[in-house]
Amino acid sequence: MTTLSPVPTQREIVLTGDRTTGKLHLGHYVGSLKNRVQLQERYETYIMLADVQALTTHFDRPAMLAESVRQVALDYLSVGIDPEKSTIFVQSMIPEIAELTVIFSMFVTVSSLRHNPTVKHEAKERGYDDLYYGFLGYPVSQAADIAAFKASLVPAGEDQIPHIEQARKIVRRFNELYAPVLVEPEILVGERLNGLDGGSKMSKSLGNAISLDALPEEVSAQIRKAKTDPARIHKTDPGHPEICTVFGYHSIFRQEGCEEIRENCMKGRLGCAACKAMVTEAIEEVMRPVRERRELYRHREKDIDEIVMSGTAKAREAARRTMGEVRGAMGINYFNK
Amino acid sequence: MTTLSPVPTQREIVLTGDRTTGKLHLGHYVGSLKNRVQLQERYETYIMLADVQALTTHFDRPAMLAESVRQVALDYLSVGIDPEKSTIFVQSMIPEIAELTVIFSMFVTVSSLRHNPTVKHEAKERGYDDLYYGFLGYPVSQAADIAAFKASLVPAGEDQIPHIEQARKIVRRFNELYAPVLVEPEILVGERLNGLDGGSKMSKSLGNAISLDALPEEVSAQIRKAKTDPARIHKTDPGHPEICTVFGYHSIFRQEGCEEIRENCMKGRLGCAACKAMVTEAIEEVMRPVRERRELYRHREKDIDEIVMSGTAKAREAARRTMGEVRGAMGINYFNK
Ligand code: SF4
Ligand code: SF4
Repeated sequence: MTTLSPVPTQREIVLTGDRTTGKLHLGHYVGSLKNRVQLQERYETYIMLADVQALTTHFDRPAMLAESVRQVALDYLSVGIDPEKSTIFVQSMIPEIAELTVIFSMFVTVSSLRHNPTVKHEAKERGYDDLYYGFLGYPVSQAADIAAFKASLVPAGEDQIPHIEQARKIVRRFNELYAPVLVEPEILVGERLNGLDGGSKMSKSLGNAISLDALPEEVSAQIRKAKTDPARIHKTDPGHPEICTVFGYHSIFRQEGCEEIRENCMKGRLGCAACKAMVTEAIEEVMRPVRERRELYRHREKDIDEIVMSGTAKAREAARRTMGEVRGAMGINYFNK
Repeated sequence: MTTLSPVPTQREIVLTGDRTTGKLHLGHYVGSLKNRVQLQERYETYIMLADVQALTTHFDRPAMLAESVRQVALDYLSVGIDPEKSTIFVQSMIPEIAELTVIFSMFVTVSSLRHNPTVKHEAKERGYDDLYYGFLGYPVSQAADIAAFKASLVPAGEDQIPHIEQARKIVRRFNELYAPVLVEPEILVGERLNGLDGGSKMSKSLGNAISLDALPEEVSAQIRKAKTDPARIHKTDPGHPEICTVFGYHSIFRQEGCEEIRENCMKGRLGCAACKAMVTEAIEEVMRPVRERRELYRHREKDIDEIVMSGTAKAREAARRTMGEVRGAMGINYFNK
């Protein structure tokens, strides 16, 4: 007979999410979704439909958000996020995140934000002064997203490392200034998936992405056009798998057999068409169950709405608890201590 | 017999407030409080204990806020703000203001904030990069304060003119981008009261202020030390009232008799001591009822807390209604249209 512990052990908390600016793709899967599906078994997992973050770049296209919120929720369910295990919620419906953003903004300097790589990059493109204030504060609001749930772990792509580092600093500063009620997050870095054109990261806006809702014939057509080693004209030409996008996919989607493919390519024993057919099959191993789950949910719009609404209510409760502690730590809980 | 209109005419809405960084002084009274007491008779008036704004400069001294929130509330009641007519509320307890701040921040450029005089001034003092992000965004958050209540009128000092102008622009931009649900505010400029040392505006941090809770003997002692025309040594020296702080007070606190004082001063027929005694009496006309009301409330801490709490609940309702419309206008009310 086992005895139940009277106080449940505190589970570690995971927070992730995606900007709701369109459907998700295979890069999201490899970089973060795959990890989330595993993490939800062991951690208390919050997954954010980041519509406020989406507004930082899409404020003049809000109509798109309403569509994307549901698309991304469907993507989550399709990849195996289990609403019984993970809490899917809408960022804009958690006012505590905005409150925490405003509080953090009091003690984060403009210069620390200017040093953030994403902000730096954008500032380079459009000029620093023409940045939007909210864009400059992107790292602040991201720190608030994470801190509102006391998340200790954030599964995300490597490009997020500086953001999470900045979130750690902001949380640490809060804890020093007031009281140590917030949690410094760690990042769990996912794999990086290159786009079909090779080189740059898979990204919808670059048009080099395989959408998570692509049909089998679309996937194979896209892979057929994927960039390979340009030096290879004939099958017998020795290939350079280390610079080949398709080989990159093999190494990510294939459990075994990569070494053989590498060798056969280098020795001119494997043609690119055959190699691509093989990688398509490996990708399909991932896509098939995603497609099947999508079929199950696709027409259950009301159910999806309910999943997101009840997730949002649960997330709200958690964020509210945190904000209570934040107010207490700051001594601004004047009337309800 | 008069008939009641079935639909009450929409009253215009006033929003004002004060940063809760200590007790208020006579400069606040002249610049804004006096107007508010009159406006509450005709307008739906919201008065904000601006503790979040206070945090932008006092984030490392939060303990001070808890004290100030109640001090300022007591000041309000003392000057004649009637909780039956005006809604006194705590800014940090209205999450909708933070939400609106975050939304506005999406489409306000860094450069427009850098041109705000208050931000410019502070940037000059401490270097632009060392500004805090929240301080840079002060005009955004002020626009959110006003817009959350759809206030059309903001009684404030002349130094607030550029802020309200910026708030108007932000509201206009929102209305253009989404739908015209927010109201462009106008400022009702109050008089400016110089400090006891002449020249600069009355301000607690400059140590030249008469606190609203000063006792009669303190008021007269402070006035006795007030700066006058330095050229006057003897009573018979011709004075220059236009550069005299005390004469400035006469012209603000005295309904009549200013012309006579001016003339007598210029002709060397009025001594500064006598002149100061006269102005002290004029100021006491204002201070006496304030002191009496303060006596009534001083030990009723629970009542004050209740006034502020019920005001905050009412303000929250109003802000929530506005945010509902804001979400509707932006189309981000995904699940409850
Ligand atoms: S055989 Fe495969 S790994 Fe080699 S270049 Fe062609 S696609 Fe790339
Ligand atoms: S008489 Fe009055 S107005 Fe003239 S200098 Fe003295 S204090 Fe000022």
